[in-house]
Amino acid sequence: MAEKFVSKRNLDFLLYEVQGVERLSSLPYFADHTRETYDLVVDTALKLARNLIYPYLREMDEKAPFLEDGQVKVHPIVKTMMKEWGEGGWISSSMPYEVGGQQLPVTMHMACNYVFGAANFPATGYPGLTTGAAHLILSFGANELAETYVPRMLGGEWQGTMALTEPQAGSSLSDITTGAVPTDQGYYKIRGQKIFISAGDHDGVENVVHMMLAKIKGAPPGVKGISLFLVPKKRLASDGTLEPNDVTVATVYHKLGYRGCPITQLSMGENDDCRGYLVGEAHKGLSYMFQMMNEARLGVGMQATAIGSAAYYASLEYARERPQGRRLSSKDPTLPQIPIVEHADVRRMLLFQRAVTEGSLSLILQCCMYTDLAKTDDAEQKERYGLLLDLLTPVAKTYPSENGIISVSQGLQILGGYGYCQEFPLEQYYRDIRIHPIHEGTTGIQALDLLGRKVVMKNGQAMRLYVEEVQATIQAAMPYEELQQCAERLKEALEKLQSVTMHRVQIALQGDVEKFLADATLYLELFGIIAIAWQWLVQGIAAQKGLETDCSDLDKRFYEGKLHTMRYFFHYEIPKTYGLAARLMESDGLTVDMSSAVFDD
Amino acid sequence: MAEKFVSKRNLDFLLYEVQGVERLSSLPYFADHTRETYDLVVDTALKLARNLIYPYLREMDEKAPFLEDGQVKVHPIVKTMMKEWGEGGWISSSMPYEVGGQQLPVTMHMACNYVFGAANFPATGYPGLTTGAAHLILSFGANELAETYVPRMLGGEWQGTMALTEPQAGSSLSDITTGAVPTDQGYYKIRGQKIFISAGDHDGVENVVHMMLAKIKGAPPGVKGISLFLVPKKRLASDGTLEPNDVTVATVYHKLGYRGCPITQLSMGENDDCRGYLVGEAHKGLSYMFQMMNEARLGVGMQATAIGSAAYYASLEYARERPQGRRLSSKDPTLPQIPIVEHADVRRMLLFQRAVTEGSLSLILQCCMYTDLAKTDDAEQKERYGLLLDLLTPVAKTYPSENGIISVSQGLQILGGYGYCQEFPLEQYYRDIRIHPIHEGTTGIQALDLLGRKVVMKNGQAMRLYVEEVQATIQAAMPYEELQQCAERLKEALEKLQSVTMHRVQIALQGDVEKFLADATLYLELFGIIAIAWQWLVQGIAAQKGLETDCSDLDKRFYEGKLHTMRYFFHYEIPKTYGLAARLMESDGLTVDMSSAVFDD
Repeated sequence: MAEKFVSKRNLDFLLYEVQGVERLSSLPYFADHTRETYDLVVDTALKLARNLIYPYLREMDEKAPFLEDGQVKVHPIVKTMMKEWGEGGWISSSMPYEVGGQQLPVTMHMACNYVFGAANFPATGYPGLTTGAAHLILSFGANELAETYVPRMLGGEWQGTMALTEPQAGSSLSDITTGAVPTDQGYYKIRGQKIFISAGDHDGVENVVHMMLAKIKGAPPGVKGISLFLVPKKRLASDGTLEPNDVTVATVYHKLGYRGCPITQLSMGENDDCRGYLVGEAHKGLSYMFQMMNEARLGVGMQATAIGSAAYYASLEYARERPQGRRLSSKDPTLPQIPIVEHADVRRMLLFQRAVTEGSLSLILQCCMYTDLAKTDDAEQKERYGLLLDLLTPVAKTYPSENGIISVSQGLQILGGYGYCQEFPLEQYYRDIRIHPIHEGTTGIQALDLLGRKVVMKNGQAMRLYVEEVQATIQAAMPYEELQQCAERLKEALEKLQSVTMHRVQIALQGDVEKFLADATLYLELFGIIAIAWQWLVQGIAAQKGLETDCSDLDKRFYEGKLHTMRYFFHYEIPKTYGLAARLMESDGLTVDMSSAVFDD
Repeated sequence: MAEKFVSKRNLDFLLYEVQGVERLSSLPYFADHTRETYDLVVDTALKLARNLIYPYLREMDEKAPFLEDGQVKVHPIVKTMMKEWGEGGWISSSMPYEVGGQQLPVTMHMACNYVFGAANFPATGYPGLTTGAAHLILSFGANELAETYVPRMLGGEWQGTMALTEPQAGSSLSDITTGAVPTDQGYYKIRGQKIFISAGDHDGVENVVHMMLAKIKGAPPGVKGISLFLVPKKRLASDGTLEPNDVTVATVYHKLGYRGCPITQLSMGENDDCRGYLVGEAHKGLSYMFQMMNEARLGVGMQATAIGSAAYYASLEYARERPQGRRLSSKDPTLPQIPIVEHADVRRMLLFQRAVTEGSLSLILQCCMYTDLAKTDDAEQKERYGLLLDLLTPVAKTYPSENGIISVSQGLQILGGYGYCQEFPLEQYYRDIRIHPIHEGTTGIQALDLLGRKVVMKNGQAMRLYVEEVQATIQAAMPYEELQQCAERLKEALEKLQSVTMHRVQIALQGDVEKFLADATLYLELFGIIAIAWQWLVQGIAAQKGLETDCSDLDKRFYEGKLHTMRYFFHYEIPKTYGLAARLMESDGLTVDMSSAVFDD
């Protein structure tokens, strides 16, 4: 295992020098917090990660969950971890005081999840889903539900899940068939199947609370007939004990990676005795669930970033220690070999890893800040931050996931044959990260969300606000000579993005929705590169400001490393937008106006 | 498991309609063969693949090799497979009659390896390495060595390997330290360590024959002191029995994929009793080994293509059978769901998979034809084909490997959550294919070979010949209206490649070899996309010719599918060259003129 998996210095830079998270204290919800609180929180998270979470990375992968007598068994350390995360307040840290939370900014909560994920991504499935499920109950559930379920979830005794997907529906939620029949006892009888439910059952907790989409008998077809239910694995009997709730685990999937956390197939109501409790109003379930889905999407982006971070430090460590070959300009075989970090091609791969990881982290923390800043009472500002968050969520989910895969793959490549072997962690990171473009909505679904909904919503209002943000950054960068070239490149790229957007929207206005969205995935890719470029320029400004201070030599090297990585991004990654933009300006409908018989042979 | 893993129709198209492999019969070496021989060979290979090789894909992955009492144990079916491959003449098919071969074109031999690899890539490590090792002995070894070793290798009784890499040297062969001390018995005493030796030991054969690089005591430093030895696991005693040769297996690596074939670490001469037999002259070992390495590099490209092919058909089968969602233009939830192959984004991913796979196959078969055509007596033609093969080998190794990974990843993505699970084969393909940019020279090494050696050798002669080949294809395409736009795009791309090449070579001429080669990997990527575009245009011409015949409806659909995939390539893949070319026209030395302290933080 590598020594380092995250950089505290980089996290400090992003939290304080880039985002200035302390400014949130001007909002009443965060009024109690100072830089000291935040420092303490991150330090404690780092300690917990290093001492408890990281050491089990490999072992939890090797001892994958299994199903025995209807119960999913996981590595015994999961119970200890959940207890720590619960009792230490990590699951509830961003929640209000009145439910036992600490009212920390989501930005800080997510920064800690990043630390935990870099240590051991599969382990973070347990607390992450529990936080999201508890938040959903608090937001939309009746008080009684909240009082019964939330404290034990936040305490790490009970697991939370999100249960959406069904065998016949997959990404098409309008086709779910899990049914709910009202009773006169205040609960519904649930019957159906759910697949791909992360942490859907395990023996690290005493109960599992599913936030489940289902259709009440007689509901309208499609998404307008979807309701949200709380369906526990065990329900509370009248004497306060837990009794089975007719939720059966049909399968634990055997997976490529993410093996430390079980993904399950569940069957509800096989004995007609599964009780579900309606959350909020009937038929509004999908809109409620979007709260948890959007949080989970940011969480996916963050966990992909976290894996990428661990992979980056592991390959950097290797590259610095592994001697091999000589400079191309002096191949004398009698000279000693040099560490491979001295080879240009290895540096290029390391710079790519770093640029993707730190750029992604910067974008996700930016999104978290929008979440926190939206806790203002100023209605206009609230809407502004909400719209920016809506627009950027599919990007913050997808760029880190898709590029994280390539980044980990480059990291593996740096180790050569060793990268392919289990004695180094890269092969596990490579397997683990591959789930991220799939779960919580595939990349294709995110792309339809971005171009088909977010870009065009409110007549393009979110897009206009976003362009303003990027332009403001460009303006702020211009006074710095070191940043001018990158700022110019961002300006060009942003203008190109606007042209492409106009072109695609024109196709929509002509009524051809299939063609409008045919290359939405490429549009998302283009959008993503530019968003990360923006975040690199944001970091570049902060680094320049840092250099203007009376900083230590170490800090100076850190800031110069940031500036160099920024330049890497603008010289190697921005050019990838040229081809994407060129393709997106075409509208031949190559994948639309074709018969699937093309694939016959 | 998917029903289909290769397309016989596509193989026929490439072999006969594109390459016209029958024309090789005009060369004496191939004079006995006709289309009938070739058809029979491919049909038999397909049968063998379906009945014996494909069924063990998953099982060989699950029951990975292990070391027991100094012996590597593999799945018992390996013994049966090696017997079939040996006795059926598959290992020796391209070898001369006098050693029991069939004098088949390498093109046909490789086409069969493609079929076997699509069925079960890890299984092909065994015969593939044996062919290459036997060929090396035949080319450079003394008659006595050949007579002792080659027949049993070609018969599948003895395994061949290539043993280059060492712990302290990795890709830097000039730093190998395995030593050879001459004796007066005609053999050398070998002592040293080799790592990452594929099929380096196993119980599916009775002996293993290593083609090993070592340095004779007192040899010059660097690559000029490397000799080639034949080092058997067991040597022939004077009574004709086999006795141990002091070759010990130190490790069997536990790997991400390619688990059906062991990769081993070997130790020679621990008891000072390891005998090696010099192959050819002393100190010329590396140049001999390049024969096997170059064959192996084409083999790697072919096996990456084969995995990509199997993945393509598996995801196509899924996409045709899996109903989910509705057209974007008619989202009425009461309508039935449509198969996902009807969604534009899924088609885009399938077209990418097909374009990469069939484009790669086409390029590799083109290289194989150059190998076969070089068997001419015409010295000028011989040199021409030899140079084209040299130039294109790093491309034919790398494009299929790097893009094969992305292509399999897209295939996995098409299956969504199921792609991540072991009940479908995509996750294994994803693990298996990841080795290809690593073994037989990493992508970075291939890139240095292409730009640093092949492009500039003989004053750019190979590059000139290649440009002529591509230009001839463009000319041949122009008369077809359907092909004109693609031909124009290829012309532009080729011109861009020439400009980029000139620009990079200028940097070399100014003496800055580090900067010249700093982005060699991007140059290889650019070169690769254009080479595959060329092969798609070659296929487009053949498809147009096919459409001009009185063909069946099925054939018509096949040709139209080819043309559509070609258009996909020019509209989605060629644009990727824009950014690469733009970056390669810069020469800021961003990865050269930097200190590795940039990575401090």
